[in-house]
Amino acid sequence: MALNKKPVTGMKDILPAEMQLRDYCINVIKETYGKFGFTSIETPCVESIGNLNSKQGGENEKLIFKILKRGEKLNLAEAKEEMDLVDGGLRYDLTVPLVRFYANHANELPSPFKALQIGNVWRADRPQRGRYRQFMQCDIDILGEPSNLAEIELILATTTTLGKLGFQDFVIRINERRILKAMAAYSGFAEEDYDTVFIILDKMDKIGADGVKAELVESGFAAEAADKYMSLFDELTANGNSVAWLAEKLGDFLEPEVSQNLSEIIDSVRATKASEFEITFDPTLVRGMSYYTGTIFEIAIPQFGGSCGGGGRYDKMVGKFTGKDVPACGFSIGFERIILLMMENGFQIPGQPKKIAYLIEKGVSGDRLCEVIAQAQEARKNGDQILVARMNKNKKFQKEQLTKEGYTDFVEFYKNPIEKQ
Amino acid sequence: MALNKKPVTGMKDILPAEMQLRDYCINVIKETYGKFGFTSIETPCVESIGNLNSKQGGENEKLIFKILKRGEKLNLAEAKEEMDLVDGGLRYDLTVPLVRFYANHANELPSPFKALQIGNVWRADRPQRGRYRQFMQCDIDILGEPSNLAEIELILATTTTLGKLGFQDFVIRINERRILKAMAAYSGFAEEDYDTVFIILDKMDKIGADGVKAELVESGFAAEAADKYMSLFDELTANGNSVAWLAEKLGDFLEPEVSQNLSEIIDSVRATKASEFEITFDPTLVRGMSYYTGTIFEIAIPQFGGSCGGGGRYDKMVGKFTGKDVPACGFSIGFERIILLMMENGFQIPGQPKKIAYLIEKGVSGDRLCEVIAQAQEARKNGDQILVARMNKNKKFQKEQLTKEGYTDFVEFYKNPIEKQ
Repeated sequence: MALNKKPVTGMKDILPAEMQLRDYCINVIKETYGKFGFTSIETPCVESIGNLNSKQGGENEKLIFKILKRGEKLNLAEAKEEMDLVDGGLRYDLTVPLVRFYANHANELPSPFKALQIGNVWRADRPQRGRYRQFMQCDIDILGEPSNLAEIELILATTTTLGKLGFQDFVIRINERRILKAMAAYSGFAEEDYDTVFIILDKMDKIGADGVKAELVESGFAAEAADKYMSLFDELTANGNSVAWLAEKLGDFLEPEVSQNLSEIIDSVRATKASEFEITFDPTLVRGMSYYTGTIFEIAIPQFGGSCGGGGRYDKMVGKFTGKDVPACGFSIGFERIILLMMENGFQIPGQPKKIAYLIEKGVSGDRLCEVIAQAQEARKNGDQILVARMNKNKKFQKEQLTKEGYTDFVEFYKNPIEKQ
Repeated sequence: MALNKKPVTGMKDILPAEMQLRDYCINVIKETYGKFGFTSIETPCVESIGNLNSKQGGENEKLIFKILKRGEKLNLAEAKEEMDLVDGGLRYDLTVPLVRFYANHANELPSPFKALQIGNVWRADRPQRGRYRQFMQCDIDILGEPSNLAEIELILATTTTLGKLGFQDFVIRINERRILKAMAAYSGFAEEDYDTVFIILDKMDKIGADGVKAELVESGFAAEAADKYMSLFDELTANGNSVAWLAEKLGDFLEPEVSQNLSEIIDSVRATKASEFEITFDPTLVRGMSYYTGTIFEIAIPQFGGSCGGGGRYDKMVGKFTGKDVPACGFSIGFERIILLMMENGFQIPGQPKKIAYLIEKGVSGDRLCEVIAQAQEARKNGDQILVARMNKNKKFQKEQLTKEGYTDFVEFYKNPIEKQ
């Protein structure tokens, strides 16, 4: 028949071993974030196409899986363009749906509202190794909290969770959009060029300081500005990446409360952290999304090249949708990367029940079968995991397969127990 | 702006109180099914449109949310019909994806394979109260087990789970497609008419025995057959719905192993059940899907009119996809109905942590802020749920809101503690 055994292009089936790890991580995440007062919410996977195309999703808006209109609304003969055919799409992130959710339910929610979302998102990206078109995101957001208490709580909650999942010695890189801007202004770049400058600065990891400088000049910026900009980074490094030093250097280009605010976040997190990690001011951190208005941060895990999550403050996004600004700040864990790293590291899930397989000879039935099942029920009540299965013809192979699944004990039940002994 | 605050038609946002209950239920389900050796798997929410339209989904195939082709593959100018425009769709159940999954991975899976799936499905049904176009299904299936051990394990696992969720005095109604057929044959109906007869029989709950009889005659069946059929049900009731009595009555119309097999399931479940419920043979149970080949069963919960879940044996479905039959049997819980009932009954989630809100006056910062956060971190380590938030201007209202969220204790932190006391 027409069945295609493979999942659709770019998406994957999840087998039992990986699912067990995912379920474990989700439980740790929900429990830990719960302790910080984050409450789970869920939105539909489908959003109206108008919401998805609202310019908040940046490049992701080009990658939407669109959903065909149904019934009378679908008029194929008169359709002139794609948008005539569709009315919804699969969400490409959890932030746009969160903002819609908040706009819809603000009256029913406490203030501040601390939301936890774990859910799939879809992007029709070019398929590549380790990146899928359906993947899970795990976001926490605080809406309605203007002070840096939001950043402190988000960073402590996320790092405590990562610690509980066995990660240590990772680094939280933190920066501020307003510091980024002040450094550019100080160096003589024009405000309308900031975004272009930051896109080039964002390549620092890959092309180094000299590369950034060269590309700035190539892009038509004044060599003087590029020089001053790169010297500022050099001096800042020489001064231990000190926020206080930078604030003094930038003078009137930066409001004092911005640097104080950032320093307080870094100091508070250092003083109260519950797991082993470092938090450092990183003036080269840019983060792609243009909707960020203040602090931005990222998780760098040594075993893993890129970022394993990040976030920041986006105080103007709710207002763009509802007409009334609401302070907002979020932190997203790169769930799929975390799972990948844990599998590569051979992470052992703690507190697993004892796994016992009861193998029953084919002819066992009636009262004898009831006895075996009753025994299994009793063992389950005592906390064991009991697989009750018919004995296969090739018992040895069956046991090998079950051993791979983690079964350590086998009990065999025969129709005539005495005969077999 | 263009933002639509509402979720798309027929789908819903899930608020924190309901999410907490859903998360609790999912954990109980995963833990309990786990004890029976069921392992979680997941498939993508999107399936190829060919798989979804493979005639296994019955009426649901008319309700598919279809996904538009992308890039060069989408040729709007030359598209003549809907199917030229789409390449995928959102799954309408978890059974078709499971069978595809099994076909794709059978070599990597143990035999028998006991799968647990909890996931959303989508159906573009007419929206109505309490029914949504995105809803969660929770299925367990055993693939590769030909004996009634599959049915016994599925029913015990599902009923144990329902018991742990606080349900009792519910009824598992069980029947056999082959008994349905034998009763129809015995009464004189022709084999090609069975499906029509069963569709009418399925209305017994609503129109009663007289109604069924009248509709059979109206539909053109011989009054003699309708009479004999309804008398058989009457006699069976008078004989306590005994499977053994029916088997003798039906004689050669029913293979003896069918009734023995069914009786053994009922007896074994009664003898080993771990929660309070009844299992009864119900000769009027039909279940809609034509793919069932043997036992069929349903959960009836007294507080709730309709079915809260069901399943059965479908030994021929894998073969229709792969060319090689594999015995298969599944049981699906009506997750959304279970949640609805639990909310209506005011179910209290056990083992909740103590919820304490720390309210911090606006001016608190620096070392004093660190002290407060450190205290919160310590309490979290000890198992409490601590919300750290800035004190709102209207402190009374803030506390009222938090009380609604389940916070029982409030601790207030001021910039100058002594002054305030």
